[in-house]
Amino acid sequence: MTTVTDFTPMLQQVLEEVRPLTLQGKVADYIPELGHVDRNKLGIALYLPDGGVFCAGDAHERFSIQSISKVFTLIMAYRRLGDALWQRVGREPSGTPFNSLIQLETDLGIPRNPFINAGALVVSDILCSQYVNAHLSILEFIRQISGVDDINFNTRVARSEAQHGYRNAAMANFIKSFGNLKAPVDDVLQTYFRQCSIEMSCAELVRAAQLLVHYGTTPDVSETLLTPSEVRRVTSIMLTCGTYDAAGDFAFRIGLPAKSGVGGGILAVVPGRMALCVWSPALDYHGNSLAGGRALELFSARSGFSVF
Amino acid sequence: MTTVTDFTPMLQQVLEEVRPLTLQGKVADYIPELGHVDRNKLGIALYLPDGGVFCAGDAHERFSIQSISKVFTLIMAYRRLGDALWQRVGREPSGTPFNSLIQLETDLGIPRNPFINAGALVVSDILCSQYVNAHLSILEFIRQISGVDDINFNTRVARSEAQHGYRNAAMANFIKSFGNLKAPVDDVLQTYFRQCSIEMSCAELVRAAQLLVHYGTTPDVSETLLTPSEVRRVTSIMLTCGTYDAAGDFAFRIGLPAKSGVGGGILAVVPGRMALCVWSPALDYHGNSLAGGRALELFSARSGFSVF
Amino acid sequence: MTTVTDFTPMLQQVLEEVRPLTLQGKVADYIPELGHVDRNKLGIALYLPDGGVFCAGDAHERFSIQSISKVFTLIMAYRRLGDALWQRVGREPSGTPFNSLIQLETDLGIPRNPFINAGALVVSDILCSQYVNAHLSILEFIRQISGVDDINFNTRVARSEAQHGYRNAAMANFIKSFGNLKAPVDDVLQTYFRQCSIEMSCAELVRAAQLLVHYGTTPDVSETLLTPSEVRRVTSIMLTCGTYDAAGDFAFRIGLPAKSGVGGGILAVVPGRMALCVWSPALDYHGNSLAGGRALELFSARSGFSVF
Amino acid sequence: MTTVTDFTPMLQQVLEEVRPLTLQGKVADYIPELGHVDRNKLGIALYLPDGGVFCAGDAHERFSIQSISKVFTLIMAYRRLGDALWQRVGREPSGTPFNSLIQLETDLGIPRNPFINAGALVVSDILCSQYVNAHLSILEFIRQISGVDDINFNTRVARSEAQHGYRNAAMANFIKSFGNLKAPVDDVLQTYFRQCSIEMSCAELVRAAQLLVHYGTTPDVSETLLTPSEVRRVTSIMLTCGTYDAAGDFAFRIGLPAKSGVGGGILAVVPGRMALCVWSPALDYHGNSLAGGRALELFSARSGFSVF
Repeated sequence: MTTVTDFTPMLQQVLEEVRPLTLQGKVADYIPELGHVDRNKLGIALYLPDGGVFCAGDAHERFSIQSISKVFTLIMAYRRLGDALWQRVGREPSGTPFNSLIQLETDLGIPRNPFINAGALVVSDILCSQYVNAHLSILEFIRQISGVDDINFNTRVARSEAQHGYRNAAMANFIKSFGNLKAPVDDVLQTYFRQCSIEMSCAELVRAAQLLVHYGTTPDVSETLLTPSEVRRVTSIMLTCGTYDAAGDFAFRIGLPAKSGVGGGILAVVPGRMALCVWSPALDYHGNSLAGGRALELFSARSGFSVF
Repeated sequence: MTTVTDFTPMLQQVLEEVRPLTLQGKVADYIPELGHVDRNKLGIALYLPDGGVFCAGDAHERFSIQSISKVFTLIMAYRRLGDALWQRVGREPSGTPFNSLIQLETDLGIPRNPFINAGALVVSDILCSQYVNAHLSILEFIRQISGVDDINFNTRVARSEAQHGYRNAAMANFIKSFGNLKAPVDDVLQTYFRQCSIEMSCAELVRAAQLLVHYGTTPDVSETLLTPSEVRRVTSIMLTCGTYDAAGDFAFRIGLPAKSGVGGGILAVVPGRMALCVWSPALDYHGNSLAGGRALELFSARSGFSVF
Repeated sequence: MTTVTDFTPMLQQVLEEVRPLTLQGKVADYIPELGHVDRNKLGIALYLPDGGVFCAGDAHERFSIQSISKVFTLIMAYRRLGDALWQRVGREPSGTPFNSLIQLETDLGIPRNPFINAGALVVSDILCSQYVNAHLSILEFIRQISGVDDINFNTRVARSEAQHGYRNAAMANFIKSFGNLKAPVDDVLQTYFRQCSIEMSCAELVRAAQLLVHYGTTPDVSETLLTPSEVRRVTSIMLTCGTYDAAGDFAFRIGLPAKSGVGGGILAVVPGRMALCVWSPALDYHGNSLAGGRALELFSARSGFSVF
Repeated sequence: MTTVTDFTPMLQQVLEEVRPLTLQGKVADYIPELGHVDRNKLGIALYLPDGGVFCAGDAHERFSIQSISKVFTLIMAYRRLGDALWQRVGREPSGTPFNSLIQLETDLGIPRNPFINAGALVVSDILCSQYVNAHLSILEFIRQISGVDDINFNTRVARSEAQHGYRNAAMANFIKSFGNLKAPVDDVLQTYFRQCSIEMSCAELVRAAQLLVHYGTTPDVSETLLTPSEVRRVTSIMLTCGTYDAAGDFAFRIGLPAKSGVGGGILAVVPGRMALCVWSPALDYHGNSLAGGRALELFSARSGFSVF
């Protein structure tokens, strides 16, 4: 594969084919700030190892990254703790809806993986222990790896999540009752709500993912952030756990390690080969972008970038 | 049955027989204040419909009534809402440990019964909506029906419960996420922790239970607090749900409607016939007083007061 | 209480009041033989300790006793094993629908109580070990305690249950996998399907229940079949577990130990006081006779026979 | 990648490093025939797209392929039904131990994926509907794709599985109760037990897997057995579901689509790149070969064949 190929026409073609799906599904509305997003938005961006970025549609408009932030906090915690991280959180698919408390009770407070909410709360807790202002450190890290200085929180979204976040509060208190949160529950929740409220565009997200494409280093960041082996492991968790309880179906249909968010974004990465981000706000039953999932499927089938 | 009988010797005999069990089991120690209680304490009190009270052992020493308070808050909420109460909380045995979140998820936030923690939180929430200072109204109600003016909270116990109550906080937030709490989560939790911290003696508890013995009225309180039918229903819930997930075993061995607390008290009531309270701090696997349960069993077998 | 009272008018009155309910609910139709039963059938019979039997409606017409048979097989197994029985089956309410396999997995093959299907299969297995032809011994026992010689199986019903009994076969194999069935799976299933197919009338069922009314003896059977304590224990399990996952509601509304069957019968017993059987084929959501449950509720409220 | 490389030394080296692990773990002994296998056995075989096969250790000794057979029956059923197959069985990781009945109840008889026992029973049922003698057709298919004519069942193993297969019988009856088995339960079970009893060597298994390596065709079989897209989908299910509830950990550590069996074999495949089979009888907690898993991990790290 060489980048003399211009992928823009293919990306545009994919967007046109999936555009009808933007009328189906449901924009997340459990907080008003997310519900107001225009369901017609549709964007896609592709990053290739030689540094080329191809964009189509609303690829430069920022949206709420929500759970996609869990990839970045996982990287931060993994860098700090190394494999000791896995004593605090598992790496198995959960097999139940993403906000379930049942498995947490069976597993005595150890979340199944870092991409379900419970696991992301534990990861946020780790960052609360490692940084004075964890949420600022998360923001700074994302700015650094994407090379974009004005990425920021949406404080209204974060505040709204906090006001309606009873289930996350239940989860955090429950994990705390098993001793698997160290920081105060409120600190963890605030950090978590803030990281989810960060706004980025598809183009910025694929730039942030370049450290995974380049096996842990980036042209912009001189130091090695993760080892190649660690990068493979992060992407393996994206494949098996990155799209809620539809991960098996995503692997089956699409074959790309990916992480989705209820803001309608999906970030897919194949180390050494590419990063791809798609955005369309309307979600399917499982909470993944409906048009976004289909766009990934078409792109994967046509590009041959599938890991299988 | 007539009260010319002096039950004191029988109660003393029962205490002597169960005293060796006070050395077994485990005093609740999830908060330090409960863990400091002397495991040798052992008391029993019997109230009969003609007003007679018989006592033995440490029947006049106060202890933390904990979950026994759920009987009194249930009565208060039932009086206020009538059968509309059952839209907020069920009346089925839970079949799982008393603090489980699993059934709550399956049942969409409607706790199985008012005696598991989840159900008691909903009852406390109802009282928070009905009274300006719910915890003070609860205290006042208990003083009134027992005729004892200096019954009080133990604020250190309440504060300690609040500091360690992550699982109850998880439960309250979880119920709130289903819309089945109306008041702020913290208000409900504070009310709940305070009602559990109330301290009473066996003798005081059987006096408080006289309103159930007398089918809803008491000599001291002129008004009718519950109808006879409502009293039967409260006691039926005590029988099927009053002793955590050992309710079937309690019905089988003892045959008395009863409510236990982790402070080591158990209050048993048969409308029209008697109220009995026993206290011994060491608990069995299910969280019920070990010696207390055995004392009830011996008393039931010898007195013929079983409902079966 | 004296039997100079003629309860017939009260029973007739109760039937008239609940008759409209026979039009609601659903006749069990998972096997054709049960589905053909006329939903207008409605009968009731009352047995009092002095031997008096009062009947109304279709009290002398036989129907499929189905799960009511579990009371009789429990008595037989309890007589043979005594309290060793409780190592094979629990006595706690199950808290989940009557045919669930979930709890069985959690509890390693020990069913929660003898009245859910899983528990009844274990009881049938015990009888298979104790008797050469367990199903014939069950029939003989029921004939003996009821004093009716021509009670019999309905072989078409038994055969039909066997043909459609995949869930019971699943349960039996599952229990066997935990080692808690001793006899061959097919023997246990055949015994169970046959005992469920026995046909009796309300009048015959209250006669069969007289041994519980008389604390373990009957006028017709010279020997003592159960001790008074064992009788109390059987009835306590009827109260806490006898009506599937509506046992709490039954205790609350009716206050009588009872066992229901999907044939539409419900048998209620208060030792020393009475046995009552009602039959109406249409069932409520939980599998209990809809009109039958209401008839018990009215009778209990008017007669004062509630255990509470 | 070119096959002038001789992989034999690397495979030998891997075996030497993992050999100490053959002393740990537990040989499956739920049937005597499996328990008698020598735990010191250790073999590995590698197939490359140019047809090269490299072997080390006991690569030519046959063992019970057990659940590895599920890959071949899945391929057969997929060929016959196409994507209609997914109405009968899902493709999501199960998140619970491989023989659990719990999810089956929640999911109304649709197994989570074709590699848990429940799902494999549904696949076997499909083959029972498609072939007169399904077990013979399975054997014939495996002989055909591997090019080995004397592969066969071990009838003692199959018979022994049938005698101890209460949990599989429970599962089959349970699925049947939901209507998701069409053939008689016994036929499905016999087919399943026989397919699991097939004996093959590592060298034969990688030859059988060549149709996945070659995207659905093989040098030996002129027709196209699966489309490239179907091959990718089968391997994606191997990655997310192929190693019981350790699939996430396998993806994380090893990064190869794989299917394990309790006989101690693990077959890994990357379409277009290689098939690898390892055999060591002693199993880890999850039921996967302990030394085998480690061998895959070492091979993957050194060869760079990981899909991530």
